[in-house]
Amino acid sequence: MARQPTIVGNPVLLVIDIQKSAFMDGDPGIPIMPGYSDNMRRARSVVDAAHDAGIPVVFVQEIHRRDMVDYGRELDGSEGIHCMEGEPGTPVAFEEMGRLPGDYYVPKRRYSCFYGTEMEILLKGLKAQTLILVGGMTDVCVHYSFVDGHQGDYHCRVVSDCVGGTSSEAHQAALTAMEYLQEGAVLSAEDIITAMSEQRMAAE
Amino acid sequence: MARQPTIVGNPVLLVIDIQKSAFMDGDPGIPIMPGYSDNMRRARSVVDAAHDAGIPVVFVQEIHRRDMVDYGRELDGSEGIHCMEGEPGTPVAFEEMGRLPGDYYVPKRRYSCFYGTEMEILLKGLKAQTLILVGGMTDVCVHYSFVDGHQGDYHCRVVSDCVGGTSSEAHQAALTAMEYLQEGAVLSAEDIITAMSEQRMAAE
Amino acid sequence: MARQPTIVGNPVLLVIDIQKSAFMDGDPGIPIMPGYSDNMRRARSVVDAAHDAGIPVVFVQEIHRRDMVDYGRELDGSEGIHCMEGEPGTPVAFEEMGRLPGDYYVPKRRYSCFYGTEMEILLKGLKAQTLILVGGMTDVCVHYSFVDGHQGDYHCRVVSDCVGGTSSEAHQAALTAMEYLQEGAVLSAEDIITAMSEQRMAAE
Amino acid sequence: MARQPTIVGNPVLLVIDIQKSAFMDGDPGIPIMPGYSDNMRRARSVVDAAHDAGIPVVFVQEIHRRDMVDYGRELDGSEGIHCMEGEPGTPVAFEEMGRLPGDYYVPKRRYSCFYGTEMEILLKGLKAQTLILVGGMTDVCVHYSFVDGHQGDYHCRVVSDCVGGTSSEAHQAALTAMEYLQEGAVLSAEDIITAMSEQRMAAE
Repeated sequence: MARQPTIVGNPVLLVIDIQKSAFMDGDPGIPIMPGYSDNMRRARSVVDAAHDAGIPVVFVQEIHRRDMVDYGRELDGSEGIHCMEGEPGTPVAFEEMGRLPGDYYVPKRRYSCFYGTEMEILLKGLKAQTLILVGGMTDVCVHYSFVDGHQGDYHCRVVSDCVGGTSSEAHQAALTAMEYLQEGAVLSAEDIITAMSEQRMAAE
Repeated sequence: MARQPTIVGNPVLLVIDIQKSAFMDGDPGIPIMPGYSDNMRRARSVVDAAHDAGIPVVFVQEIHRRDMVDYGRELDGSEGIHCMEGEPGTPVAFEEMGRLPGDYYVPKRRYSCFYGTEMEILLKGLKAQTLILVGGMTDVCVHYSFVDGHQGDYHCRVVSDCVGGTSSEAHQAALTAMEYLQEGAVLSAEDIITAMSEQRMAAE
Repeated sequence: MARQPTIVGNPVLLVIDIQKSAFMDGDPGIPIMPGYSDNMRRARSVVDAAHDAGIPVVFVQEIHRRDMVDYGRELDGSEGIHCMEGEPGTPVAFEEMGRLPGDYYVPKRRYSCFYGTEMEILLKGLKAQTLILVGGMTDVCVHYSFVDGHQGDYHCRVVSDCVGGTSSEAHQAALTAMEYLQEGAVLSAEDIITAMSEQRMAAE
Repeated sequence: MARQPTIVGNPVLLVIDIQKSAFMDGDPGIPIMPGYSDNMRRARSVVDAAHDAGIPVVFVQEIHRRDMVDYGRELDGSEGIHCMEGEPGTPVAFEEMGRLPGDYYVPKRRYSCFYGTEMEILLKGLKAQTLILVGGMTDVCVHYSFVDGHQGDYHCRVVSDCVGGTSSEAHQAALTAMEYLQEGAVLSAEDIITAMSEQRMAAE
């Protein structure tokens, strides 16, 4: 099949798990690669561009109850306690990301933002066809959200310098895996901002 | 959390997409790593061990209709037409894998064996707690089936020398990603066969 | 919201569980209302009209494995063993319904044709917006398939004289419940055949 | 299959959509049967009994965004705008129901409390096997939550004098439909409170 355009139909920006901990010192319970905070900070430029272009923005948050009933198997591997309700690092970094009224918010208990959430309901309501992903972790929540979007027939794009992984190697491997699924899926912030801007001009 | 035992509760063996094409010459529509066929062939030993230990075996098959209505976005990336109904490479390699009466069969249209399938119904019926994965592709159907099993609270294990990837690098990266999710998840055929055998002896 | 047109966007006909047992003597394991077989037979006229109008037809089949692993809680109530693989009443009544090549087939293990099936994948592939339901049982598989279609944002229609319930009262109550969800949802065969025919003419 | 015990394994109480509007004058946007408020009030006794017996309680809330993106097809039938965020009738009636710290809360956008929610994640975490339902509407959210619980292999119970329908007829028909699915599913508050109490004593 021919390579698809960067944005097909209605795009939606998914901001995956950019939470206060990304900008705090201390152990978030999850290993992070060098430059992680910088990439999260850069995601702000994509959020702003989406706002400018009238593209819906969805803030996704991983959050777990303090009684730990909903961690499932998430503590069997390399992650410690993370994203616990009531901890200072858990709230979405709304201020840092320039959230506007009208933006959406979807909490989740697992890695994929489709698993046990209202995401599919919301995307149907928005008549979304293209999903643009920023946030973390490249190789966990971003990768597995991309996969479920892909399996749900969405055109998926991931902004390589606005996502961060659990290690540089894992970050790079996940980007390669996403590009394998959809050619042209991996873009820089500069590229996606340009595409969003053209989208806006076409709509005007 | 402490590292979990290799087999917790009732195990089930998932044989992911070991289809005739794995043992045929010609282009299966999907890139494959060196040694792919050998690893698929080796999966037979794990199937046999499951049979010996009374562990349920589920053969999963990716299959797409000839009118191509159900490929979704699967042709937007590195894969060409694959697993099409009626093609000689598409049937499950039942003979090569030594299928027995009583084994289960679950077809699927997407990468994860949980996506749009009866897998969760079947696993609940089997009261499964541990999933053991062999087959292909390590970095696509195996990886994403593992992730959904993980998200569904199953203990997941992948047999490293009985799975094959779209490249050696992608294969290795996916194994690393699975080990990240559950420590001890990646095992050799020898190790899992030993664990299955102990499981059988404990049951006797 | 204003009452919606009978057919919005692309329609798809779902033939729910019209299996050989509908036209056989003997106990199907499920209670049936008077006139059940007549209504199932009448469904053929809707299938024919869909074929004439170029509307996709999906045959759905409830089927359970002989080892009974996938009955779930379906035997806790008024139903006995039903739709078991290998029994003479279980195959889809393809001949009686005039199945054509190009029609689709989706097996299921539960009541709703969306639960643990590829239905949503298929409907996305068909770009379906309106679902037309015939078959049985009005108050079980038809009702609960309608509900899931409704929850998935589809316009849902049910053909009142081409569905049959577990009793006349249950049949009527389920029709009332579906009309509650979408005004104008309950139609006669004559009405839906007219609407399908207009759909075809509009497309020509 | 033999009729099942009232409570099998671990029970969980699901309080479906008991929101402030149940105890307010004015139009909630949904038709209600006579005696609706009384039944909602009576549900408190079941919540208290669950607390006494150490049975987990989950408060479910239907809630829709003010921009109406997530109503789906819910306004195509007999319901008007309902459960809108920011309206006085929309908050869960926590005070009236005697909510305690440790109770759970799950919002939803559709009728079934499983559809696009974390319910299955939570129930797996609680190792629940029996679901006890109170709340409203008997023939919509309660009925369709029961059905999804049933399809998910849970033993489901509904407390007939602690649920209320969109009409007396619809209420009764839905109770009959639930009893059809699982014999013994429909119980009075008195019966379920007794069963909960025996559960507690058995645990001590």
